[in-house]
Amino acid sequence: MKRLIFTGLCALLWCALPAAAQDAATVREDFKPSELNQLGQDYPMVNSQGYARFRIKAPEASSVIVNLGNTVLQKGEDGYWTGTTAAPLDEGFHYYHLTIDGGVFNDPGTHNYYGSTRWESGIEIPAHDADFYAMKNIPHGQVHQILFWSESTSQVRKAFVYTPPQYENGSKEYPVLYLQHGWGENEYAWWNQGKANLIMDNLIAEGKIEPFLIVMTYGMTNEARLAGRQFDYKEFETVLCDELVPYVDSHFRTRADKAHRAMAGLSMGGMETRNITLDRPEMFAYWGLLSGGVYMPDDIGDPKRVQGIFIGCGSKENPDRIRQAAQALKSAGYPVKAYVSEGTAHEFLTWRRCLYQMAPMLFR
Amino acid sequence: MKRLIFTGLCALLWCALPAAAQDAATVREDFKPSELNQLGQDYPMVNSQGYARFRIKAPEASSVIVNLGNTVLQKGEDGYWTGTTAAPLDEGFHYYHLTIDGGVFNDPGTHNYYGSTRWESGIEIPAHDADFYAMKNIPHGQVHQILFWSESTSQVRKAFVYTPPQYENGSKEYPVLYLQHGWGENEYAWWNQGKANLIMDNLIAEGKIEPFLIVMTYGMTNEARLAGRQFDYKEFETVLCDELVPYVDSHFRTRADKAHRAMAGLSMGGMETRNITLDRPEMFAYWGLLSGGVYMPDDIGDPKRVQGIFIGCGSKENPDRIRQAAQALKSAGYPVKAYVSEGTAHEFLTWRRCLYQMAPMLFR
Repeated sequence: MKRLIFTGLCALLWCALPAAAQDAATVREDFKPSELNQLGQDYPMVNSQGYARFRIKAPEASSVIVNLGNTVLQKGEDGYWTGTTAAPLDEGFHYYHLTIDGGVFNDPGTHNYYGSTRWESGIEIPAHDADFYAMKNIPHGQVHQILFWSESTSQVRKAFVYTPPQYENGSKEYPVLYLQHGWGENEYAWWNQGKANLIMDNLIAEGKIEPFLIVMTYGMTNEARLAGRQFDYKEFETVLCDELVPYVDSHFRTRADKAHRAMAGLSMGGMETRNITLDRPEMFAYWGLLSGGVYMPDDIGDPKRVQGIFIGCGSKENPDRIRQAAQALKSAGYPVKAYVSEGTAHEFLTWRRCLYQMAPMLFR
Repeated sequence: MKRLIFTGLCALLWCALPAAAQDAATVREDFKPSELNQLGQDYPMVNSQGYARFRIKAPEASSVIVNLGNTVLQKGEDGYWTGTTAAPLDEGFHYYHLTIDGGVFNDPGTHNYYGSTRWESGIEIPAHDADFYAMKNIPHGQVHQILFWSESTSQVRKAFVYTPPQYENGSKEYPVLYLQHGWGENEYAWWNQGKANLIMDNLIAEGKIEPFLIVMTYGMTNEARLAGRQFDYKEFETVLCDELVPYVDSHFRTRADKAHRAMAGLSMGGMETRNITLDRPEMFAYWGLLSGGVYMPDDIGDPKRVQGIFIGCGSKENPDRIRQAAQALKSAGYPVKAYVSEGTAHEFLTWRRCLYQMAPMLFR
């Protein structure tokens, strides 16, 4: 767990750092507003090479810094601070914030996304393969907010449930994937920055998967910032397995058995997935770790315990570990699919791609 | 429309202003974190009298001002700026923001709420009657995000649909209320700052209403900030009546006729409601204007056109206009209910209370 939190923190801080110094002559002046900007906001902007440009109004400030690549903005005569990253950012989604005169604030130009235990600004560098999570004129599923009583934590807790197109017009029962966010994130992550609902809508429209539900809930029972070494996934296991799963099975048309239930998670959510799937062999048939560790044959024992294993990460993480574990599992007769996202780090484009790669192997 | 936007803007700027100068001796030191704070954040705080206290880290800033009561914060030696409003704020929800060195930013301590065409900070002054929208251990309905194709605007548009508890487990068909936000707000307003889902859950648990669905969508077809005088509700009428209503009727178990369809809105949403209900006499049987104007007998004509009219506002708005219109409507034989929220202005506690008052008269 400590290792995973450390990995996550390092990734959050470093992964989007520019890889090379900016050569002013090479920056194309084709900047457009980031697609995550608030309505009517021009900045931040992104160009076709992946450079990001920021513009912040703070006429009396003495310093404005963007933590993406530690980009120090320069003040203009109009009271706006502007600056461009020193190098292109990785494709995909990045959290960021501003440091203004020593305090941490969000960029008023963007929507906010929960990461690092706070709602942060977000910017999207268009990916070459963005089509698989693009919003299209196709049938769209729904994302349901549910509020369920948790006896073990004595509180009403929240989850979001994706249901596929046509769910509401039929009597069919569906398999369910329980999908967990990473450290410092929450139950909004997978359908906001992760675009899980659009990935599913697109996969279903193309006939590439067996439609299923996705359940996304907050993966901690205490505050992430306080958890650290004290974090014990066991309390969350109780919430998930003994409270949320029964609630979902009684409020949605699910196929309520192991063969039709999967669990996966990213980063810390992978740690949770790994522990909980091994703790509860009767509950989940498909297991997915996204930048969140690996299973080895000795962890699992009898290969019949699992119907399918997915392990993946970004090529800028530790892909060899994924490949080696996949090789070991395959040799020992376990049903495994490994995937390495090319050119991405410990960030959401890795996990969007992982979901896209994992979904077709589930419930088949 | 101009009047409504002006009213809305004035209200946003002024309504939460302190009503009397702060007497330091009378401020009770029983401050607690606002319930809208981000997880683990102590500030902003609210005391039992309704004073708000802010605390912002910005060690090198030269000025930090909170626009609630124009509260100028003072810098401490620890680099944090703190300050307390000069007088208690009205009960209920208030949008606010910080001006730091001349730039506008959000308070990193709070969740964000869309108002004034941007995601703003929010603070909640506990109301004496907060129980009707409190989160309780009772059956809870769901809030569904739906994505529907809009031919008239050539885009996928978003709406949220509240469904009551048990909706998912039965075959019953439900009436529907189309409920609009105000100027500068969006489709998140009624279920986030408005707590419409919790108001409904509580009313249903107490057996006080006939359960119904609530549909909440963005009430503009262009940018609110640009609309102003150019705003024409007609394009939205097309989206709502010709695109969204058919989508909802084909994706939810609704009673798809006039007798089981209502429309209501707050502020600008009231203006839209007034125009659209009068334009489309075949569509909506119940009409609600919440701080959003009135109907007069001459507007409507035949009393048989409408099954129920609700008009309401806060006592700090123009309640006489509501009472006079109600009197005129009643005398002329129209089924009307008027309501004035005591001690509130053009803000969300007024509208939470209006929904609570309006819901029992719908579909009966």
